[in-house]
Amino acid sequence: MPVGTQGTVKALSPAELEAEDCRILLGNTYHLNDRPGMEIMEHVGGLHKFMGWDRAILTDSGGFQVFSLARLRKITTDGVEFRSHNDGAKHFLGPREAMNIQRIIGSDIAMVFDECSPYPCSRDSACQAMERTLTWAALCAQQPRAEGQLRFGIVQGSVFPDLREQCAQELVRIGFDGYAIGGVSVGEPDDLILPGVEMGIGALPADRPRYLMGVGGFRQMIESIARGVDMFDCVMPTRVARNGTAVLSDGRRFSVRAGACKKDLGPIEEGCACYACRHFSRAYVRHLLNVDEILGARLMTLHNIHAYLELMRRVRKAIEEGTFEGLREMVKDSED
Amino acid sequence: MPVGTQGTVKALSPAELEAEDCRILLGNTYHLNDRPGMEIMEHVGGLHKFMGWDRAILTDSGGFQVFSLARLRKITTDGVEFRSHNDGAKHFLGPREAMNIQRIIGSDIAMVFDECSPYPCSRDSACQAMERTLTWAALCAQQPRAEGQLRFGIVQGSVFPDLREQCAQELVRIGFDGYAIGGVSVGEPDDLILPGVEMGIGALPADRPRYLMGVGGFRQMIESIARGVDMFDCVMPTRVARNGTAVLSDGRRFSVRAGACKKDLGPIEEGCACYACRHFSRAYVRHLLNVDEILGARLMTLHNIHAYLELMRRVRKAIEEGTFEGLREMVKDSED
Repeated sequence: MPVGTQGTVKALSPAELEAEDCRILLGNTYHLNDRPGMEIMEHVGGLHKFMGWDRAILTDSGGFQVFSLARLRKITTDGVEFRSHNDGAKHFLGPREAMNIQRIIGSDIAMVFDECSPYPCSRDSACQAMERTLTWAALCAQQPRAEGQLRFGIVQGSVFPDLREQCAQELVRIGFDGYAIGGVSVGEPDDLILPGVEMGIGALPADRPRYLMGVGGFRQMIESIARGVDMFDCVMPTRVARNGTAVLSDGRRFSVRAGACKKDLGPIEEGCACYACRHFSRAYVRHLLNVDEILGARLMTLHNIHAYLELMRRVRKAIEEGTFEGLREMVKDSED
Repeated sequence: MPVGTQGTVKALSPAELEAEDCRILLGNTYHLNDRPGMEIMEHVGGLHKFMGWDRAILTDSGGFQVFSLARLRKITTDGVEFRSHNDGAKHFLGPREAMNIQRIIGSDIAMVFDECSPYPCSRDSACQAMERTLTWAALCAQQPRAEGQLRFGIVQGSVFPDLREQCAQELVRIGFDGYAIGGVSVGEPDDLILPGVEMGIGALPADRPRYLMGVGGFRQMIESIARGVDMFDCVMPTRVARNGTAVLSDGRRFSVRAGACKKDLGPIEEGCACYACRHFSRAYVRHLLNVDEILGARLMTLHNIHAYLELMRRVRKAIEEGTFEGLREMVKDSED
């Protein structure tokens, strides 16, 4: 899922995302609640209508942002009181509020309001956050939802296998349409990411979507898929694009700003079918980035989103055709 | 002509300009010479290939920017020595250099290197600038050009009718493929703009394109067309777009940032056929502008470029059908 934090995947239009056969994107409850705010969101009839996107949308619950972005937090059993990172306005977000906002947004998949433990984190506070996550998940499951809206629970428990397993089992007992693995890729060393995925995933039913939140390295994704993950979101491909970093089809990255691209008449990636690669040279894209032209951010973002969606198409095909191991081999040396 | 200063019409892709039936755009010699520079431009085979645009391009000569943007100017009979506004590097631009750069850029229409008098300006210095413009025009006419490249002379003379008339006559004597009226809309009161157009235009042949440089108000354009002008460029529609100002089909402007647009479900302009108006509400565009999303700049720019190109299509049709006076009436109260 490309990330559309504020009601747009940065630099792209909905038409471009459709042309790339993007079928679902992610919106951020925290940011949308801040601006445009739910009064406007309700008036315009939800995020699909607002942003002109009739394909699927998943919204996070705002929990992650409340714990990472917002200031002056006060955590109670009902939720979190905080000040907006934007204008300092006081807000309160808890399971009831998060589900209500997502109901107004009208996303196709709503995430439960959870407490995401940072890394590192003591076993005690990881346990407390996991238990609060479960209490809130149960509350979220009772809130009204938008018509047809699915609801996903989120496994927390930091780096502690038994906590994650317990969390997964309890979530399944409550019963959700899908399950996410949260609290992974929150600053821990790379070699703790896959173990984080493994903990607890065995307790999640294989016939429900399993979604690994915030992980977007090619190797990490492929290895997570090998362990049973079905869905991902990551802000990385769009964020690094605007800084001039291209993600290639094997997961390697390189900077189009590099001096070596000055006179390079080739596309961002040879053989790539995206609009940027079909029409423009590295030399041109480098120039656009150097002089801060919007088209530079657009072309880089288009390319990176294409690379990600294309990887997922190849994975699906490889799984169907029984050639997944070969694909896994190909990206095993990609940077992340 | 939409303005593509640095090798891109800000925020738009070539495909979008083609979809709007844009047939010619303007590139800036001064900026392109600065970045990417002519070594890269020559290597990539000119601006058309560089930016993926196979329709027409007109380039200015850099004279206007040298006299308005650059620092530490030293003017000689051969041209102007100056420091780049960007990195302070020393450059020299004169008739030979300007025509050579435009030859490398490979524009379809090259402009002569002129001296544009500021406003206000004494008769003496206006006369001197006009005479220098003529000397340089004669020199420009002798320089090699790109294959098929047309060359336009530029009428200067500030607000002095006899100077402008003399300049126009001398330019016609040298002989150019088209003629431009320069030094208008350089800070003078609005009611001096049309008189500036009238001075000298009578001496320009009606069977050659006559191009009014840098003027882009709807009323100013229509009134200039009534006086014989065929071509315009103006950075205004794209520049104000990025600040949230929409230009409507009758030339009026309004700010989509206004609070009144908060919950406005209507398009930027009712009945407009541009991509932005067909798919998005004022409420959405306002939100995008408020949170500094690139898509906001894109949609606003698309709309404004559409409004301008559509006006020109309506003018051409009205002239053919003999209904130009009605159109003239419609925009007579538009803001510019």
